[in-house]
Amino acid sequence: MVAGVKPWPGFVYDFYALLLILHVPKIHSRIFEIFICTTSNLYFGMSPMYSWGVFVLLSLVHVIMTSSVTSRMDDQSENLAAWPFRHLKIPSGHVSRNVKKKNTGIRTFQKKSTTGSQLCQTCSGTVLRRCIQTSSTRHVELTSVRYPDVKRGNYGSVRDSDLATFERLLPGRVLTDSLDGYNTDWLKTCRGASQVVLRPKSTEEVSAILKYCNEKKLAVVPQGGNTGLVGGSVSVFDEIVISTQLMNSIISLDEISGTLVCQAGCVLASLEDYLSNHKLTIPVDLGAKGSCHIGGNVATNAGGVRLLRYGSLHGNVLGLEAVLANGEVVDCLSTLRKDNTGYDLKQLFIGSEGTLGIITAVSLNCPQKPEAVSVAFLGCESFQSVLDIFKESRQKLGEVLSAFEFMDSQTMTVAKENLKLRSPIEDYPFYVLIETSGSNGSHDEEKLSQFLEHVMGTGIVQDGTVATEPTKIQNIWSMRERIAEGLMHDGYCYKYDVSLPLQSFYGLVEAMRERMGTMVTRVIGYGHVGDGNLHLNLTSPEYSTEVMDKIEPFLYDWVANHKGSISAEHGLGFKKKNFIYHSKSKSAVRLMKDIKHTFDPNMILNPYKVLPDF
Amino acid sequence: MVAGVKPWPGFVYDFYALLLILHVPKIHSRIFEIFICTTSNLYFGMSPMYSWGVFVLLSLVHVIMTSSVTSRMDDQSENLAAWPFRHLKIPSGHVSRNVKKKNTGIRTFQKKSTTGSQLCQTCSGTVLRRCIQTSSTRHVELTSVRYPDVKRGNYGSVRDSDLATFERLLPGRVLTDSLDGYNTDWLKTCRGASQVVLRPKSTEEVSAILKYCNEKKLAVVPQGGNTGLVGGSVSVFDEIVISTQLMNSIISLDEISGTLVCQAGCVLASLEDYLSNHKLTIPVDLGAKGSCHIGGNVATNAGGVRLLRYGSLHGNVLGLEAVLANGEVVDCLSTLRKDNTGYDLKQLFIGSEGTLGIITAVSLNCPQKPEAVSVAFLGCESFQSVLDIFKESRQKLGEVLSAFEFMDSQTMTVAKENLKLRSPIEDYPFYVLIETSGSNGSHDEEKLSQFLEHVMGTGIVQDGTVATEPTKIQNIWSMRERIAEGLMHDGYCYKYDVSLPLQSFYGLVEAMRERMGTMVTRVIGYGHVGDGNLHLNLTSPEYSTEVMDKIEPFLYDWVANHKGSISAEHGLGFKKKNFIYHSKSKSAVRLMKDIKHTFDPNMILNPYKVLPDF
Repeated sequence: MVAGVKPWPGFVYDFYALLLILHVPKIHSRIFEIFICTTSNLYFGMSPMYSWGVFVLLSLVHVIMTSSVTSRMDDQSENLAAWPFRHLKIPSGHVSRNVKKKNTGIRTFQKKSTTGSQLCQTCSGTVLRRCIQTSSTRHVELTSVRYPDVKRGNYGSVRDSDLATFERLLPGRVLTDSLDGYNTDWLKTCRGASQVVLRPKSTEEVSAILKYCNEKKLAVVPQGGNTGLVGGSVSVFDEIVISTQLMNSIISLDEISGTLVCQAGCVLASLEDYLSNHKLTIPVDLGAKGSCHIGGNVATNAGGVRLLRYGSLHGNVLGLEAVLANGEVVDCLSTLRKDNTGYDLKQLFIGSEGTLGIITAVSLNCPQKPEAVSVAFLGCESFQSVLDIFKESRQKLGEVLSAFEFMDSQTMTVAKENLKLRSPIEDYPFYVLIETSGSNGSHDEEKLSQFLEHVMGTGIVQDGTVATEPTKIQNIWSMRERIAEGLMHDGYCYKYDVSLPLQSFYGLVEAMRERMGTMVTRVIGYGHVGDGNLHLNLTSPEYSTEVMDKIEPFLYDWVANHKGSISAEHGLGFKKKNFIYHSKSKSAVRLMKDIKHTFDPNMILNPYKVLPDF
Repeated sequence: MVAGVKPWPGFVYDFYALLLILHVPKIHSRIFEIFICTTSNLYFGMSPMYSWGVFVLLSLVHVIMTSSVTSRMDDQSENLAAWPFRHLKIPSGHVSRNVKKKNTGIRTFQKKSTTGSQLCQTCSGTVLRRCIQTSSTRHVELTSVRYPDVKRGNYGSVRDSDLATFERLLPGRVLTDSLDGYNTDWLKTCRGASQVVLRPKSTEEVSAILKYCNEKKLAVVPQGGNTGLVGGSVSVFDEIVISTQLMNSIISLDEISGTLVCQAGCVLASLEDYLSNHKLTIPVDLGAKGSCHIGGNVATNAGGVRLLRYGSLHGNVLGLEAVLANGEVVDCLSTLRKDNTGYDLKQLFIGSEGTLGIITAVSLNCPQKPEAVSVAFLGCESFQSVLDIFKESRQKLGEVLSAFEFMDSQTMTVAKENLKLRSPIEDYPFYVLIETSGSNGSHDEEKLSQFLEHVMGTGIVQDGTVATEPTKIQNIWSMRERIAEGLMHDGYCYKYDVSLPLQSFYGLVEAMRERMGTMVTRVIGYGHVGDGNLHLNLTSPEYSTEVMDKIEPFLYDWVANHKGSISAEHGLGFKKKNFIYHSKSKSAVRLMKDIKHTFDPNMILNPYKVLPDF
């Protein structure tokens, strides 16, 4: 014990301890605080040299610990947001990429993302807008010409007297000129020959129109934002288009329960904006949100990127109002979460693609808007690792996991070669995009960090990058969303959207790759692993019947044999209706036909769609 | 500065600091650690007396801070679990209840909770078991006698030749004796006169039975755990009981996607136990889980306490297999989260109460089992406060909010007077039970603490207690679940289970209270505010037609006028089928009848149920 020790080295320790407390991640700081308390008390009261010695020693320990924390991914940190693109490495000694390189990668995304679109029905919005832009001058063959086997039903044709009646019912809202936009589908693959478009504003008007059409046996096609991908929202022959464009009022919002009631023609993005002001969000989100209508979303049971978190529209639609073919209004516009009084009729309209009735209003259960969102982009060696990561993410991220997407290396090649994008991480056979969203950012980041530490520690993830800032999150998402755009650079793209059980999920891509050999430019697979939804794409310089015959029906058979669905989220519409038996049994299809006959005996609602010929 | 200071007081400080670090809640401990570091360093090196003086001083500070923490609700604490029944007080100066009193309250719950039952279809399990226990010796009038207006349909009667056929189809599994348990409903309010019970093991056997019955026009009633509350699962006359008791195999579990496929007769609690071993849970939970069958849950669209968190079965059932009246098997047993190929037929079977087909197998989306659960029991001054708390809980608890229940003061009176329970908090006009569950206990507790601090700070909550230990959580839940049991002590209970929009939710209780005046012993309201589901109960010493006539149809009219549902989660079954028009439009009911006719033209499936007479 030495006399005359000055008290100020104590302050140094204290200051130092304070710094550590403020900066070192929680668990390490806790250990370090105990350590510093102990050592300072033990050695204080000795000579100043001892004190300084301890100070230097502690500084060294601090440096080593901090370094160790950084290199071993200090995932307990609450400050993840401060390093939005921190590069993650497993402890095996991979060299971290430098910041400049990472930033360059991100900047590349930012530049490209200015072409972002909100118009596509699927999650690959930008792509389809491009598709339309490049093909807008292309001649679109009439559907009736391209599909000569499809015969017009025994429906009436629109006469002047009919137009006069429509004009009386909807003064100034009967269109007969410049109908190209209403007659041609989003992908420019189907073109109808409708002569009249009706734009009602109310349920009563829809009812009056349908009552008249049913009596006259005039076929109709309901149309929302016309963003469908299976030719379901345009006419096949000369069906009358009933557009919900002018049915765009919000009817009510109960902020306490989060229940929104609105007309069917409300644009999805507008609803999201409206809800956002009330700290709520809409449970369905897709690339087409800038133009698709909520009525169309419900009618097609739209999936999208939030399904993993909030579930399907079958769970989120609390009620709806629909008009039957005979004009009868079916009011199931409940705002209740629980209602067990009779059969749940609204469920039949969800996903019936306008063939059972025209949805005029919906009631939705709207969740709280997340306070924070984070995205991780990871690389791994095998599809089994993708599945392992998914399993771990369900366990470790639990209730904050909001998206789980994957891409294979061939998909990344498209991004690099065709879009000149740079991956934010090294090359790997498979990539995973994970999104978390929740009510407490620091909690979510801590969960994400612990999850990442675990999956990198066990070796199922090889490399990764994390973003917490909205712009950077959007950039990573854009990379995933622009894949389909990149595919168009190859020439012609054969697009498939299937659901498969996870154990056979990627097998389809491998099977197609083996089958097609050099017949196609490439076969790529990406999609919503979290929902079992695979986007399988094949490209060739131009459309080839030989290629198509090699793909179909092999692909549909493969999906059917593996208990998959030939249409995960796009529906059947006009283009896929004859493949329904690949996913549904004969007894099920027979029941569907019976239901169709019950709801619409004259078959005037969206004919030639969903169900195979009667 | 004094020489000769011995080092051991440093150890005392360190030990003391360690204790504090381990026990004092996070933020306070952080401040206290800095404080102790500073003071120990400053004063260390002085005389032992000084050191001891500092020690005593720090002890005092500790005591003051700990006391302050308790009284001011240190809700940032990560150690909430260490004080599971810590009493919460707003800063307005309410006196904390002493520990003894709190413990006594809890002990009371523990004692009573040993009577807990898992047998009730609703969330109020214990009650109904009691009800059965007390009424098991009661003579149950035949339904055909009690409801003389209901006439037997034009069905065949079971003959010896039929029995021989059944015995050939199901050797050793045709019951004709001791059928009381199959003929009498849970509440002992309905009794059928079935002469035969069939117990198939497979879908093929169900198919063979129905094919035969349909040809012979023999009516059948499907029966699962027979825990329904509206007389839907027992015969009205002599319908043949088809029990799913022996169809209890688990078919598959995909641990990665969390998809369970099982036969319809699996008991809900067994499934939960099975899933628990795989870190998964079942998305539906109700008091009857010990005996209800998953097929019955799906057939009745059971609600329960997890609906707020995981949504309804319409969102969680991925697929099902059902046998139609004519024996045809409808295979919609998909395990896919996304499948947009045609109408979603399975939705029609969910909630159709066995009138459209017999569900033989289901496929369920199973969420991750929560790692941690917490429960808060709060008192407040008005129902508006209940709604305010609900709104705040949605915002502040977000994705971890898993239940939000309420009780009024009259309900608490039942608990106190009839069950001799003691409330864990003071008397208030309204009580709220909030449950959180999530993947990270400390995160959830922090969210709960911040939420509680906020609602107590703003004054919408007056008082509260929190539990994080399973037993104590169960005790608080038991208090909520035993209400209906307590009501039976009054004599006769008129039970209603309705859904209402939140703005008119409690208005029904007030309206009934005003209307009934002194005609009844009491009118109480409690239920799942989070789901808009009110359990309204009135009691009188014995059943009175005068009272009943005063209640109905006034109550149903009130519910209908406020856009509510006359059956939130119990279904219509036999007892409520004629009230369907109070919640569904004529056009909707007509469509339901059309669907029934399409699925079951001979009307053999569960006749006299769900839909009003044809």
